[in-house]
Amino acid sequence: MRIAYKVDDLVRLVGEGRVEGQSAQLVVSIAALKQAQPGDIAFLSNLKYKADVVASRASVILVPEDFDGHPAAGQAFIRLAKPSLALARICREIERQLWPKPSPGIHPSAVLQPGAEVDAGAHIGPLCVIEAGAQIGAGTVLQSQVYVGRDARIGPDCWLMPKVVILEYCQLGRRVRLHAGVVVGSDGFGYDTNKGIHEKVPQIGRIVIEDDVEIGANTTIDRARFNETRIGEGSKIDNLVQIAHNVIIGKHCLVAAQVGISGSTTLGDYVVIGGQAGLTGHLHIGSQTMIGAQSGVTHDLDPKSYVRDSPAMPYMIAQKVHVLKSRLPDLFRRVSSLEETIGQLGGKLSVPAQPISSPLHKK
Amino acid sequence: MRIAYKVDDLVRLVGEGRVEGQSAQLVVSIAALKQAQPGDIAFLSNLKYKADVVASRASVILVPEDFDGHPAAGQAFIRLAKPSLALARICREIERQLWPKPSPGIHPSAVLQPGAEVDAGAHIGPLCVIEAGAQIGAGTVLQSQVYVGRDARIGPDCWLMPKVVILEYCQLGRRVRLHAGVVVGSDGFGYDTNKGIHEKVPQIGRIVIEDDVEIGANTTIDRARFNETRIGEGSKIDNLVQIAHNVIIGKHCLVAAQVGISGSTTLGDYVVIGGQAGLTGHLHIGSQTMIGAQSGVTHDLDPKSYVRDSPAMPYMIAQKVHVLKSRLPDLFRRVSSLEETIGQLGGKLSVPAQPISSPLHKK
Amino acid sequence: MRIAYKVDDLVRLVGEGRVEGQSAQLVVSIAALKQAQPGDIAFLSNLKYKADVVASRASVILVPEDFDGHPAAGQAFIRLAKPSLALARICREIERQLWPKPSPGIHPSAVLQPGAEVDAGAHIGPLCVIEAGAQIGAGTVLQSQVYVGRDARIGPDCWLMPKVVILEYCQLGRRVRLHAGVVVGSDGFGYDTNKGIHEKVPQIGRIVIEDDVEIGANTTIDRARFNETRIGEGSKIDNLVQIAHNVIIGKHCLVAAQVGISGSTTLGDYVVIGGQAGLTGHLHIGSQTMIGAQSGVTHDLDPKSYVRDSPAMPYMIAQKVHVLKSRLPDLFRRVSSLEETIGQLGGKLSVPAQPISSPLHKK
Repeated sequence: MRIAYKVDDLVRLVGEGRVEGQSAQLVVSIAALKQAQPGDIAFLSNLKYKADVVASRASVILVPEDFDGHPAAGQAFIRLAKPSLALARICREIERQLWPKPSPGIHPSAVLQPGAEVDAGAHIGPLCVIEAGAQIGAGTVLQSQVYVGRDARIGPDCWLMPKVVILEYCQLGRRVRLHAGVVVGSDGFGYDTNKGIHEKVPQIGRIVIEDDVEIGANTTIDRARFNETRIGEGSKIDNLVQIAHNVIIGKHCLVAAQVGISGSTTLGDYVVIGGQAGLTGHLHIGSQTMIGAQSGVTHDLDPKSYVRDSPAMPYMIAQKVHVLKSRLPDLFRRVSSLEETIGQLGGKLSVPAQPISSPLHKK
Repeated sequence: MRIAYKVDDLVRLVGEGRVEGQSAQLVVSIAALKQAQPGDIAFLSNLKYKADVVASRASVILVPEDFDGHPAAGQAFIRLAKPSLALARICREIERQLWPKPSPGIHPSAVLQPGAEVDAGAHIGPLCVIEAGAQIGAGTVLQSQVYVGRDARIGPDCWLMPKVVILEYCQLGRRVRLHAGVVVGSDGFGYDTNKGIHEKVPQIGRIVIEDDVEIGANTTIDRARFNETRIGEGSKIDNLVQIAHNVIIGKHCLVAAQVGISGSTTLGDYVVIGGQAGLTGHLHIGSQTMIGAQSGVTHDLDPKSYVRDSPAMPYMIAQKVHVLKSRLPDLFRRVSSLEETIGQLGGKLSVPAQPISSPLHKK
Repeated sequence: MRIAYKVDDLVRLVGEGRVEGQSAQLVVSIAALKQAQPGDIAFLSNLKYKADVVASRASVILVPEDFDGHPAAGQAFIRLAKPSLALARICREIERQLWPKPSPGIHPSAVLQPGAEVDAGAHIGPLCVIEAGAQIGAGTVLQSQVYVGRDARIGPDCWLMPKVVILEYCQLGRRVRLHAGVVVGSDGFGYDTNKGIHEKVPQIGRIVIEDDVEIGANTTIDRARFNETRIGEGSKIDNLVQIAHNVIIGKHCLVAAQVGISGSTTLGDYVVIGGQAGLTGHLHIGSQTMIGAQSGVTHDLDPKSYVRDSPAMPYMIAQKVHVLKSRLPDLFRRVSSLEETIGQLGGKLSVPAQPISSPLHKK
């Protein structure tokens, strides 16, 4: 990475800080205290990692103003109010430097079909294809090898990374960010089976992706049967997620990697779904609900629910069940012992007793 | 979407129907009764949603012949025998209009290597690559940026959406429909571990995809170790599915999104697999078997089995287990109470009793 | 597949073997004994499949030296010490023939931005894009439509299949093999939520992929928040796997299809993970650990652990729990029967008894 900061550059960049010690080394990278090497900047945000500061080989360390240690030889501290906030500022500056926004223009290798409308302020990278009737907004970047289908509309200030596919009639709002390989507008999975043949149900709806949505690499979103599939404003979706036809995702939801949401299910706002969870179709998930990783949701959920497991149950019950599940072998032995003892006491069981060892040795 | 129908156009299109009321608005979209806006057509297929008709803002509503309501001002009803069948006809017509089949020809930006054979009736879109020895059948569409590897064979009337990859020596039958980002012919995952090194086992087989198969976006299918991986006629596979080397999928199977099928497993015909299910390798799954979503199948299944859960068990048992699982905390308390009581009765347990609260408070 | 061997060619190729019988048919493919057709070579590695030899229609069969059967008319045996080893040699030779390494050079349709550095010994296929500052090593193949981002470094002798995306600043070592659609360098999934808005945490780190790594189709690997995500030497990753930001995978690990590894989790060496398993973030998984398919790992694991299930538990316990789980309906009945009997004996339970049938009929 091609960055190189002097300590003074960093102070200027974060807008505050008092330097202690000095480092001849230019800062070219960021690292955690423990992994840092000369040339790295590191930071102490939590005093419980204080000891890591002493051992750190970082050239520059961001520390709280009143931190009671001192830099090693050839090392500089920058003392400031909130090291983590200062680091965030540095990261944003590095991001700006390492990912400068490409200037407007259309690469000569891109293919614009007659009738494609590209704003003069958009950047169309090499080998992109834009079909007839598609519109690309001002400030939008199609990085490379992107496909935009017939009559699709991409709003302003979007960033579509390499190999993104936007199919026919789909719409993106403003500042939408799509990672490499995202597919927007594949057909929903719908068939009518007649005489043993699965006849395709036409999938003629579209997809609307609202402003400020970000979608991770190779995620797929299916167009609606008719009407629309919709991803609400400010929602963020991770990699390899499957969103089926007619799904409506509310605003500001977070959907982790490899989640699958089946057809016609709707999410309220601020729903959070952990990785690899699956939701069956035609459900409604209330706002602010949290769904744990690998859950299997098969029924509607009220707002502010918190569930996990497959099939999903309330989080507190699931936690207990998880603990108890591993104690099942023990429980079977206890029940057998009870049966044995009750027999010795002369009790007659209506359900036959089983020997203590049986559950572990059968099958 | 660029459609616009007058009421009379719609009646002509479905071939029947009696118009009641009139709408000046052209129909430009389809929607559910509740969501519909002026300009939409909606339909009533189930009388239990009768009340939605009255409230609907749709410009045109398809209703059963004997429906006892009447259109609002500026709204038209079309009365006919089967509204859902009529809607299906309208959808197919819209599909034909919105997705017209591209005309034959090769876009000048496509790269055909010497020795590629493209039928004169095929459409090769922009920036496709067709390698030597590959054959593309009549009526087949390669939409854009598709890759067809050396000696691959694509039959007639297929549709390969943007970014589809067909690797070397793989074969597609007739009317195969592959969504964006599908990979056909990646290597199987096979290694021999010698002295700590995973040595690659050559994957030199091919893939055969039979007629009328449809495969969803970003799904991956691995070539066989030798011999072939095969997807049977009329089978439909959803998005982000993984099909490993040497898998044989029978005819008319349905495989939902994010399913994974491990190496050498074979499926009979009409097998249905729910989303996110996984099958281990070298299994045989009998015809007409149904596997629930998120199941984990680790053993062969007879024809017409119906299983779910991980590891998979018969559906009826799984349903009971799911209910009982959430009652485990209760069961542990009941067993503790039994142990306590039997102690009071003078019984001696061979497996030690545990206090009633323990399972819930211990880690 | 365009291979065609006479029996003598095969003997020469494996370097040993005694021919018995003769086949006029050229060998053009490999198959299992049972599926083999004339023109196929098959092999007997395990004497328990002896009977399949007699029934096999293969033109040539590799058998152990002392095998006591004889070829049918028009069929040849090659008798040799280790049929499976001989087959492996034949497969490698076929692989060399069917996948010859493309010769060095840059296809005229590829787009090399000013400042891209491509070794003269590299092969850059059609419609690849190589951005400024990117370096491509000697002997490396970019098959077709590959994207290599700004300042990325691809070492020598790598093979990047069609549609692979390597984003900015990422690094590949030697002999790395990436299947179609792999994305290296998508952003990590990181947001700070302020006043209801998910603000993006810049993801400015890179990815380092060490020597001899192979990665399956459509797998996604996220760049680090800062610092790096790393895949260790000789590790093999299957299709549709998600590797989040800051994950460190050790050397010689095997990760099966559709696995998801959350942010900052680290794996030692020789870790094996079964398909569809998920690991939460910030874990450390010790070397030589095995994680079963569909497991959900939520805590650190010692070296040489062997776990499965979700949440993951030791393999031996999980096996018992799996058996017992399907016997839960029975256990509930047994406990009800105990409660009934203890009541008859005059015991007073502190937790109320439940009727025998209840668990199966409620809810």
